[in-house]
Amino acid sequence: MTSVDHFWAVIPAGGAGTRLWPLSRAGAPKFLHDLTGSGRSLLQATVDRLGPLADDRILVVTGAAHLPAVARQLPDVTDAHLLAEPTPRDSMAAIGLAAALLEREDPDAVMGSFAADHVIPDGAAFGACVRDAIAAAEAGWLVTLGIEPTYAATGFGYIHVGEAMEDVPAFHVKEFVEKPSAPVATQYVDSGDYRWNAGMFVVRPTVLLDLLAENDPGFAADLRAIAAGGEEAMARLWPTLPKIALDHAVAEPAAAAGRIAVVPGAFDWEDIGDFASLGDLLDPDASSGALTVLGDESLVHARSSSGLVIPGGGRFVAVLGLDDIVVVDTPDAVLVASRDHAQDVKAVVSALKDAGRTDLV
Amino acid sequence: MTSVDHFWAVIPAGGAGTRLWPLSRAGAPKFLHDLTGSGRSLLQATVDRLGPLADDRILVVTGAAHLPAVARQLPDVTDAHLLAEPTPRDSMAAIGLAAALLEREDPDAVMGSFAADHVIPDGAAFGACVRDAIAAAEAGWLVTLGIEPTYAATGFGYIHVGEAMEDVPAFHVKEFVEKPSAPVATQYVDSGDYRWNAGMFVVRPTVLLDLLAENDPGFAADLRAIAAGGEEAMARLWPTLPKIALDHAVAEPAAAAGRIAVVPGAFDWEDIGDFASLGDLLDPDASSGALTVLGDESLVHARSSSGLVIPGGGRFVAVLGLDDIVVVDTPDAVLVASRDHAQDVKAVVSALKDAGRTDLV
Repeated sequence: MTSVDHFWAVIPAGGAGTRLWPLSRAGAPKFLHDLTGSGRSLLQATVDRLGPLADDRILVVTGAAHLPAVARQLPDVTDAHLLAEPTPRDSMAAIGLAAALLEREDPDAVMGSFAADHVIPDGAAFGACVRDAIAAAEAGWLVTLGIEPTYAATGFGYIHVGEAMEDVPAFHVKEFVEKPSAPVATQYVDSGDYRWNAGMFVVRPTVLLDLLAENDPGFAADLRAIAAGGEEAMARLWPTLPKIALDHAVAEPAAAAGRIAVVPGAFDWEDIGDFASLGDLLDPDASSGALTVLGDESLVHARSSSGLVIPGGGRFVAVLGLDDIVVVDTPDAVLVASRDHAQDVKAVVSALKDAGRTDLV
Repeated sequence: MTSVDHFWAVIPAGGAGTRLWPLSRAGAPKFLHDLTGSGRSLLQATVDRLGPLADDRILVVTGAAHLPAVARQLPDVTDAHLLAEPTPRDSMAAIGLAAALLEREDPDAVMGSFAADHVIPDGAAFGACVRDAIAAAEAGWLVTLGIEPTYAATGFGYIHVGEAMEDVPAFHVKEFVEKPSAPVATQYVDSGDYRWNAGMFVVRPTVLLDLLAENDPGFAADLRAIAAGGEEAMARLWPTLPKIALDHAVAEPAAAAGRIAVVPGAFDWEDIGDFASLGDLLDPDASSGALTVLGDESLVHARSSSGLVIPGGGRFVAVLGLDDIVVVDTPDAVLVASRDHAQDVKAVVSALKDAGRTDLV
């Protein structure tokens, strides 16, 4: 397969991944870690996945603090394509900045936005889905990728899928819906009419910015001014941009106006919300009763135990007589949790912040 | 209370404490650690307990490798009273050497031998028991301390207590019995006639060596030759001494010959065999459901958990949703175990040895 001319992959690399503490930290977020044992970080795997489609047309938008680590992990991405946000201002500003720059750089550009910390094992199925989305985007649509739900998740938003389009390989979107309750989620999944919203979309930069301008003309104008004005404009305008998610700023109003398309994706997708879902990802056969080691197996000795061990501190880890255990060792902190309490990791991070231990979060 | 003239406390400081790995190591055995949170190591606490009885007449016998650590922990014990075994040759050689030296140094000496790694919270009750034992030892008996059993332990030897003596505050010993099966242990405890053998005894040095000479005259002669001959004799004879426990070399045959007395001890005693018994010691109210921290509590954050956490690596330890958990953090290894599997720690140490990781054991 050849790459798609004028297709640009935009990778917003942000988010702390608090529920993956102590592996994921403010200074070393989830996307910088190899969480699949593939030898590549989630960010690197995202770039690997997009290379066949975008070639070297890859833009990464990340926090200024993470720019050095991102640059080291991605030696093949040119410096000019690594964009640093001076301060975090949520996804609309980050992705909108990329759109404004691309609008100037390549008038025929179609951009796709894909988070740096998602896991998609089947790159070919993903690529086919994106190619359909590109076709729809070229026709002027804002095109989301809709993930086929594998269970009645309450942690994701859903896309209500409408009629098939005639001229492009996509469907109309009836509505974006927020994270549902469990009964509603079950209803969504049973109906077959709903898809998970993974925040992945493909669009012409100008279409995206014009949709934003319909709701917030100043915001779109400021993004275009930053793209035109360089460092001075960035320093002056960036701190004034609204902190808002792209879903709220553009996708939801556009859906309500019938302006969004969806391409159903037939590929597995995982955003690794916590260590329980990471354990599932690494050992899909949950009934195996085995212990999964992410990292150097020679550092782990387990007896009568199952679960997930990450020996990330270079130290030896012994686990005895514990089922569904999560042990994450790092140089300055160790987490020991039952799988059922994987979500409580967030509370540990809060407690550490409250205690002034910002060195650990 | 004043100290007892001519009473010498001998403290054999040996044993690896394998079941307390990774805290206890070959290079830093159990007795060097503060396992009670008192601020004193088990060795230091042993010396503290014996000071009121022996004043500065305290001899420590330890491996040459541990001599520097022992010397640092015991600044008040003179160098001449810290005896180094060139190589480990079991308890008869270690304690017999102390006896042979004392026989020469103080013809009126009565020695008491007390392991460096036992925990005895009630120093006054212990002291009263030892004073009775000294009285019986002055009359020529080999006197053991018999610990009142608190449960039907299968991990200790027992002393079958006979008739009370008339002239000294002690009882005859009918028999030493090896570690019993559970039903036999229950029978022993129910009968009220048995005491735990904690390996603590009081005796005149000459009586001890003469009892040894009855079974192994060469062994006793060699020990006396080492005491008389200094370094040269030590280098020549020590490597030839039998490796045998004092119980087998002296106590059991002497008991069979009716030559041993026992003073029942009315004090709590714990040898901290593993992390389960350490947990009991630190939190006797087993039903409390609380998490005990041995060390710096500010390094531990626990939620919905009970058990024992030892943050010995200076790192932060988070424990979530685990009951009866044992977490032991050290600079190069971390143990995570269920309380029920605390004994399996020994198997980890064996596996590490097999894998050539002697740096970790």
